[in-house]
Amino acid sequence: MNRPIGVIDSGVGGLTVAKEMMRQLPKETIYYVGDTARCPYGPRLPGEVRKFTWEMTRFLERYDMKMLVIACNTATAVVLDEIKREMPIPVVGVIQPGARAAIKQTKNRHIAVLGTIGTVKSGAYEKAIKATDSSIDIYPIACPDFVPLVESGEYRSPRAKQIVSRTLEPLKKTPVDTVILGCTHYPLLEPIIADYMGADASVISSGDETARGVSAILEFNEMLSENERPEHRFFTTGSTNSFYSIASDWLGDLDLNIKKIQLA
Amino acid sequence: MNRPIGVIDSGVGGLTVAKEMMRQLPKETIYYVGDTARCPYGPRLPGEVRKFTWEMTRFLERYDMKMLVIACNTATAVVLDEIKREMPIPVVGVIQPGARAAIKQTKNRHIAVLGTIGTVKSGAYEKAIKATDSSIDIYPIACPDFVPLVESGEYRSPRAKQIVSRTLEPLKKTPVDTVILGCTHYPLLEPIIADYMGADASVISSGDETARGVSAILEFNEMLSENERPEHRFFTTGSTNSFYSIASDWLGDLDLNIKKIQLA
Repeated sequence: MNRPIGVIDSGVGGLTVAKEMMRQLPKETIYYVGDTARCPYGPRLPGEVRKFTWEMTRFLERYDMKMLVIACNTATAVVLDEIKREMPIPVVGVIQPGARAAIKQTKNRHIAVLGTIGTVKSGAYEKAIKATDSSIDIYPIACPDFVPLVESGEYRSPRAKQIVSRTLEPLKKTPVDTVILGCTHYPLLEPIIADYMGADASVISSGDETARGVSAILEFNEMLSENERPEHRFFTTGSTNSFYSIASDWLGDLDLNIKKIQLA
Repeated sequence: MNRPIGVIDSGVGGLTVAKEMMRQLPKETIYYVGDTARCPYGPRLPGEVRKFTWEMTRFLERYDMKMLVIACNTATAVVLDEIKREMPIPVVGVIQPGARAAIKQTKNRHIAVLGTIGTVKSGAYEKAIKATDSSIDIYPIACPDFVPLVESGEYRSPRAKQIVSRTLEPLKKTPVDTVILGCTHYPLLEPIIADYMGADASVISSGDETARGVSAILEFNEMLSENERPEHRFFTTGSTNSFYSIASDWLGDLDLNIKKIQLA
């Protein structure tokens, strides 16, 4: 089934999920929408997040996608259940996969969740983790400064290092051995976060596990593609130049098909 | 949905999958069937493997299982598609998850598959891996002596070491960086296999990834259990004593509910 898989995010963060999908599922075609013009979603009210996420979903519907990945934790927390219920195709988010990977990884059952204000407020990770294993302790940390750092391309700067240290400082007194990057933008800050947390803590990106989940569901439903030369497409509501700069850096691909679009 | 998950295998090997499921999904109840009396399945004709696997499936049907895991590579290769098609519940095997984990792991795209004669002959791993990524090279090795070693409890003996070295010798001349344990019995030999392959090769057990896949499918279908105290059951067609000895060693649990049954 060679129809594209839709991947949607508030901006460039979902590219961390798309990259893992391209690596683990090299025959799948990805159509990516980044709502960069209205990023970040984290501090927005749920009603807005819901509306914007549906707009991205409706936009991709015209391309006859076979599956939708909501590659944004904030959007997953707010509207995954509703979109899953209403769409006739498989829809997956990034929270359950991140929770799953962390449950597998932790040895002492103390897990930190880094997320946007919206994601942390929703309690979605706690819910997902406790649904599987009630004995795990969760330490949520809102990191409102991380997404702007990434979207502005400053994710390797000394300032990024400062902000990460300041934000994660409360974790130093805890026994956490596993840290969930509960926002798809954060993997771009992963080297700095891993460095700050030290070698004893595992840092979990949901992209990796989401790609595995997508693979499991495609295979289970016999929907894998047989296309040897998939042609990905990228749509952004913001500047194609700044999208290109981060996307080509992150994906290691200079030949990207990017188009500016309007939603709403 | 607190109904049990059925796990079936030719013998004790599927316990490596069950163990990972218990760890990653501690609220799920597992009903395990090991057809020890007719183990190994590896050298048997497909018609026999098909018949025996259906017998285990029919046996578990009376317990109203919500999902079935065919935790035996030989049975997965022969009859997964048919059972999946005919049963009204989700059915998963262990080959696709093992393939998925290996694709994620390999860096140089050279993967060895260790399996029974039946699994190697079926070409099921090649098919699963190539379906996802055609550029990967596969090195299949039939290991007919491994299952008897495990079922007899000799999986830590010097003899086990000798047999592993002799069987895997052809791999020493290849560039493989990832080895799939393509039989659920083999994880009990994993320390010896990993030691022989050296630190540069990754050894993949499908149990780990199968448990993740089960988790993904339960969550996707909203079928997770909320049972805080699941009571697992184990059924064997062979001696309960030798089943107990390996199961309690492997699961680290001395209080197991094991019952001898007859199939066929």
